[in-house]
Amino acid sequence: MPGANTSPPEMKNSMQALRKSATGPGFTLEELPIPSIGPTEVLIRVEKAGVCGTDAHIYHWDAWAQHRIVPPVTVGHEFMGRVAAVGAAVRAVAVGDRVSAEGHIADLTCFLCRIGDAHICERVKIIGVDRDGAFAEYIAMPEYNVWPLDAAIPDEFAAVFDPLGNAVHTVMAADVSTKSVAITGVGSIGLMAIPVARAAGAASVYAFDVNPAKLELAKRLGADAVFDSRSSGLVDEMKARTGGNGVDVLLEMSGSGAAIDMGLQMVRNGGRAALLGIPSDSISINLAERIIFKGLTVLGINGRRMFETWYQTQALVKSGRVDLRPIITHVLPFEEYDRAFELMQSGEAAKIVLDFTEGKK
Amino acid sequence: MPGANTSPPEMKNSMQALRKSATGPGFTLEELPIPSIGPTEVLIRVEKAGVCGTDAHIYHWDAWAQHRIVPPVTVGHEFMGRVAAVGAAVRAVAVGDRVSAEGHIADLTCFLCRIGDAHICERVKIIGVDRDGAFAEYIAMPEYNVWPLDAAIPDEFAAVFDPLGNAVHTVMAADVSTKSVAITGVGSIGLMAIPVARAAGAASVYAFDVNPAKLELAKRLGADAVFDSRSSGLVDEMKARTGGNGVDVLLEMSGSGAAIDMGLQMVRNGGRAALLGIPSDSISINLAERIIFKGLTVLGINGRRMFETWYQTQALVKSGRVDLRPIITHVLPFEEYDRAFELMQSGEAAKIVLDFTEGKK
Amino acid sequence: MPGANTSPPEMKNSMQALRKSATGPGFTLEELPIPSIGPTEVLIRVEKAGVCGTDAHIYHWDAWAQHRIVPPVTVGHEFMGRVAAVGAAVRAVAVGDRVSAEGHIADLTCFLCRIGDAHICERVKIIGVDRDGAFAEYIAMPEYNVWPLDAAIPDEFAAVFDPLGNAVHTVMAADVSTKSVAITGVGSIGLMAIPVARAAGAASVYAFDVNPAKLELAKRLGADAVFDSRSSGLVDEMKARTGGNGVDVLLEMSGSGAAIDMGLQMVRNGGRAALLGIPSDSISINLAERIIFKGLTVLGINGRRMFETWYQTQALVKSGRVDLRPIITHVLPFEEYDRAFELMQSGEAAKIVLDFTEGKK
Amino acid sequence: MPGANTSPPEMKNSMQALRKSATGPGFTLEELPIPSIGPTEVLIRVEKAGVCGTDAHIYHWDAWAQHRIVPPVTVGHEFMGRVAAVGAAVRAVAVGDRVSAEGHIADLTCFLCRIGDAHICERVKIIGVDRDGAFAEYIAMPEYNVWPLDAAIPDEFAAVFDPLGNAVHTVMAADVSTKSVAITGVGSIGLMAIPVARAAGAASVYAFDVNPAKLELAKRLGADAVFDSRSSGLVDEMKARTGGNGVDVLLEMSGSGAAIDMGLQMVRNGGRAALLGIPSDSISINLAERIIFKGLTVLGINGRRMFETWYQTQALVKSGRVDLRPIITHVLPFEEYDRAFELMQSGEAAKIVLDFTEGKK
Repeated sequence: MPGANTSPPEMKNSMQALRKSATGPGFTLEELPIPSIGPTEVLIRVEKAGVCGTDAHIYHWDAWAQHRIVPPVTVGHEFMGRVAAVGAAVRAVAVGDRVSAEGHIADLTCFLCRIGDAHICERVKIIGVDRDGAFAEYIAMPEYNVWPLDAAIPDEFAAVFDPLGNAVHTVMAADVSTKSVAITGVGSIGLMAIPVARAAGAASVYAFDVNPAKLELAKRLGADAVFDSRSSGLVDEMKARTGGNGVDVLLEMSGSGAAIDMGLQMVRNGGRAALLGIPSDSISINLAERIIFKGLTVLGINGRRMFETWYQTQALVKSGRVDLRPIITHVLPFEEYDRAFELMQSGEAAKIVLDFTEGKK
Repeated sequence: MPGANTSPPEMKNSMQALRKSATGPGFTLEELPIPSIGPTEVLIRVEKAGVCGTDAHIYHWDAWAQHRIVPPVTVGHEFMGRVAAVGAAVRAVAVGDRVSAEGHIADLTCFLCRIGDAHICERVKIIGVDRDGAFAEYIAMPEYNVWPLDAAIPDEFAAVFDPLGNAVHTVMAADVSTKSVAITGVGSIGLMAIPVARAAGAASVYAFDVNPAKLELAKRLGADAVFDSRSSGLVDEMKARTGGNGVDVLLEMSGSGAAIDMGLQMVRNGGRAALLGIPSDSISINLAERIIFKGLTVLGINGRRMFETWYQTQALVKSGRVDLRPIITHVLPFEEYDRAFELMQSGEAAKIVLDFTEGKK
Repeated sequence: MPGANTSPPEMKNSMQALRKSATGPGFTLEELPIPSIGPTEVLIRVEKAGVCGTDAHIYHWDAWAQHRIVPPVTVGHEFMGRVAAVGAAVRAVAVGDRVSAEGHIADLTCFLCRIGDAHICERVKIIGVDRDGAFAEYIAMPEYNVWPLDAAIPDEFAAVFDPLGNAVHTVMAADVSTKSVAITGVGSIGLMAIPVARAAGAASVYAFDVNPAKLELAKRLGADAVFDSRSSGLVDEMKARTGGNGVDVLLEMSGSGAAIDMGLQMVRNGGRAALLGIPSDSISINLAERIIFKGLTVLGINGRRMFETWYQTQALVKSGRVDLRPIITHVLPFEEYDRAFELMQSGEAAKIVLDFTEGKK
Repeated sequence: MPGANTSPPEMKNSMQALRKSATGPGFTLEELPIPSIGPTEVLIRVEKAGVCGTDAHIYHWDAWAQHRIVPPVTVGHEFMGRVAAVGAAVRAVAVGDRVSAEGHIADLTCFLCRIGDAHICERVKIIGVDRDGAFAEYIAMPEYNVWPLDAAIPDEFAAVFDPLGNAVHTVMAADVSTKSVAITGVGSIGLMAIPVARAAGAASVYAFDVNPAKLELAKRLGADAVFDSRSSGLVDEMKARTGGNGVDVLLEMSGSGAAIDMGLQMVRNGGRAALLGIPSDSISINLAERIIFKGLTVLGINGRRMFETWYQTQALVKSGRVDLRPIITHVLPFEEYDRAFELMQSGEAAKIVLDFTEGKK
């Protein structure tokens, strides 16, 4: 491998990768050269990778993907694996280390990066979206982005530290300790937010969605009560459960205009609303009634804080109080990627992990 | 006066008051009994009172007023005067004290009041809106709401501590120290926010409005630059003036959907937007681009913190760095109230103060 | 009863009270008139009251007590009971309500009270210390101080909401969510802090004391590990358990100079130390090494926030995750007060609750 | 110069440097090779450098210096200059850039660095103390540490951005907006803190010291009042000036035990104390009376936040409200370093800047 004398001798020269090769639906499995690394980069042998809604958008080539993605590109951004090679200037990571990585590659020289807000760097490049991603046998990452894994973190959990980190960032920004919490939208990140919020100190957690299977899962994960978002009377219901005040905290993870409006109504005066779900379009909001008169604090949430969120995520998982096993419904060999997207679309799967070592034996 | 043996002997039995006596435009000047006070209340001889946009809404009987106001009611909520009588259980206020008062009468027993957020109490009654107000020779107020005035505060400033407190609450919530600040909308509160933000530590202040006279005044009050909100290229202009990042803080004081959208675009990633201006209707917002991806903190601002904001307001005025004289464009005898509303509607006046002692000689 | 026509007809005219009647050790049980109440006060029939270390100081008449207490005074400040009568101006409490009360009676008119910091009011009067307290069949309290009890809170827990509130105030100020926490000193408040910290989101909790029985109890209450404070190598031990950094948070509840010094060494750079334990004298601190170079945040903790802490306490207990039963080792009829102080002094008891209804049948 | 083809052709091979060559008092002026730079480093031609109390400790070889410094080492850590060469991987800095630099070289891979707290990295190396410093014609710095200077910042101010940054970090941590502020100790950083606090929004600033010349300077820099720290009645004086409460904020910049005790007494209940001054030994503190009962927040302050503090410092200087000219009492050719330390010791100088370009013509 180019310029890295630390690579193991048995390493082959090419690798398999799941690619969006051209415009249109679907992915292709391609044989590509193993990426070369610069002096401050790390080559990682991918072992397991999580499948995200973003990957499904790219797979199905929807409006968002057509607007955002320029093929060809290797997809995937949630993963764990082992370090296969390190650049000459790499200091804190060594070959053989078991690692995950932050998929947002910030420029590290701009104002935002310099004040500790690299997660909202304006020049960020996202793996699997802006540059080659993790659905491959190998990926090159800046050392800065690599996260050495604690031995106590299971592989499957480590593979989804990216979305789990989204949940943790949202929960921690919302400051849930001793508070009542409503979560609108329990896709995989919303589901993760349930045990995260409880472990972070929430006194009660209520989940809202339109998918009965997800609501069932939400209950198993520790929600005090779950509700079909389309039911009437939910704002009153939440007020009744909170002494007439409304919930202290809203974690908005649906991106639905109706859910956002309902969620903001549910929050008590002076409460906090952390918005992670991405509406596909502009939405209409009664700012006066929903935010201003109520004295609300509304937080836009993007990515994960580097690396405060990662340490928090690790602490929560190590405490044993965040168990993702009910959420990771499927682990599939990576060649079965078409089936993964079918399972996701059917609503049958919560979180799917692809195994990039399976087919190698 | 009923039940208060502390009232001065020369006090007469009736008073003049500006009333919304019935539905429809205009006010009437009426002779009314001087209000009686309970054991925890204070009777105040009003000396000067500020005229607010809210009063103008009620005067002109617009859609908002028709929906909100139930005549008859004495209007006005910004004022200063002297204590004329105190109830038996009043402890910290004495006859003769020079005072202003918080016009939001919170219930003080609910959850929000009990955790120190009385300014967003759900059962608040506002003087001049929900109950008889300050455009009168006398007003009864709970002792809790009374604010003893420091001798260093001029009467005219004291008469407008309510809107000045709105400006201070907004500025302090937005945390402007060393920051760049954009103010969208420089009505009287927006104008007040300029010296307040500078005195509170803002490194630079930019003002936006459609009224050239107000922008001129904004400049005199210390804005580094002022802009017609309808100009094109203002977002780029602000980025150019802030190293490409955008301003750290938005103080939204217009309630205009267009200004809100522009203002949110101007704020840098990770910045703060404090919303005080009340849109008359729902507005369309691109939450993803304006708030979520940027990692913004958006704060709904209502009233004034009781009484942290009042202490901050006092400290700012006493420091000599908040001079309201350019903003208080007119002081009129209260009988000239019709002229006051004409001056306001013409845009000729910034802040008008009515004098309730003038006619008494 | 004077001036309150809402009192139940069967109420007698005198009551029993535990008094410090004169200088010197011990208490006396006296028959006293039932206290009268003013218009904003509430008379409470005490049912259960917690015994605090402060009560023991007064009982044994130690140096602190000799300096602070002016007999005669009824002692006791932690309690619950039922409302027996209310003053004419009382609004949110009714006869028959099951209540506890904040024992710090703030003046409510000073700067600190007016900005929401009544818990550190300079003119505070503490029941059982500065004025008659709760070890009696009846106590008069300002309505402001009364805390209506949720039906889900057991009597014994409600009786010790005061010290539990100290623990909650300390934990919440220290911001423990996802953090590692060391507690130095596990007297009854330190013990309470263990389940409180866990429920509030602490990822790990370590307890330090010199009393093996308390350490054993600490473990039962959920501490990850417990240590004899006199052991050597504890700072290194804590670093080893926290990736070499030290704990994120110190909750200092011993008041011991040695424990404070050790605790500050255990905290990581940039960590937080919340100090609740009261040293009996000045102590020597290496500010440079322990606080300044480390960039520590050190918080002095006093009382309970009114009433944010009370709501948090209620939420934690209602969530079912703060179980005080292992801490409340004894419930005794109030006549057995001498035995209570013997049990405390022997170290046999953690928290003792006196029952003021027992003897009445 | 080794490995850097970007260096200007006229650059010579050796440079002059002020060195602590051996144990004992004094510095020596030596001719040394110009430092080589690695791929991520920057070579800076030093133009102006500030003289700090730390340099004086090393010059006079006091107890602290004997304990901390291992000769030989080039001293000095406050400076500005121009980039002479950049390593191959340097991205955001170019030859010719006018720059200052953060003198604390953090490891950037530890927990603290990874969560944005590099200023308290446990493995920090300080230039001029742990490795060769800035009292030389050239210095090599990691790109990460280099701070490109805004054209509006004068050279002399840029040369002392390090201590000015200490003042800014302290002031911003203490949160002075609208507050009353006491500064104990007005050495050069304490003096800088006066205009910084005012510009950051302090409503009033009081300065305390034992040196009348420094107090005089403090007044010129904008202190509302100045006091000899040894006077009696100062705590009462401060209470009288703050409505009986005490100051909101203490900025402790003396390191004196007596000043710390007095300062903590001056702070109001619930106030904040930011400690920057380094006591030479342990001091005795009455934690109960000074910190715990008062509910104080005490902050240890170390270095400057990277690089939030630097942006704040730049904003304050650019706003025109922080003028250091009265503080920079002398600019001397670097060969006159002995005179600089004489001037410092005599108390005649506040801040001295050495010019490393003077002798070159």
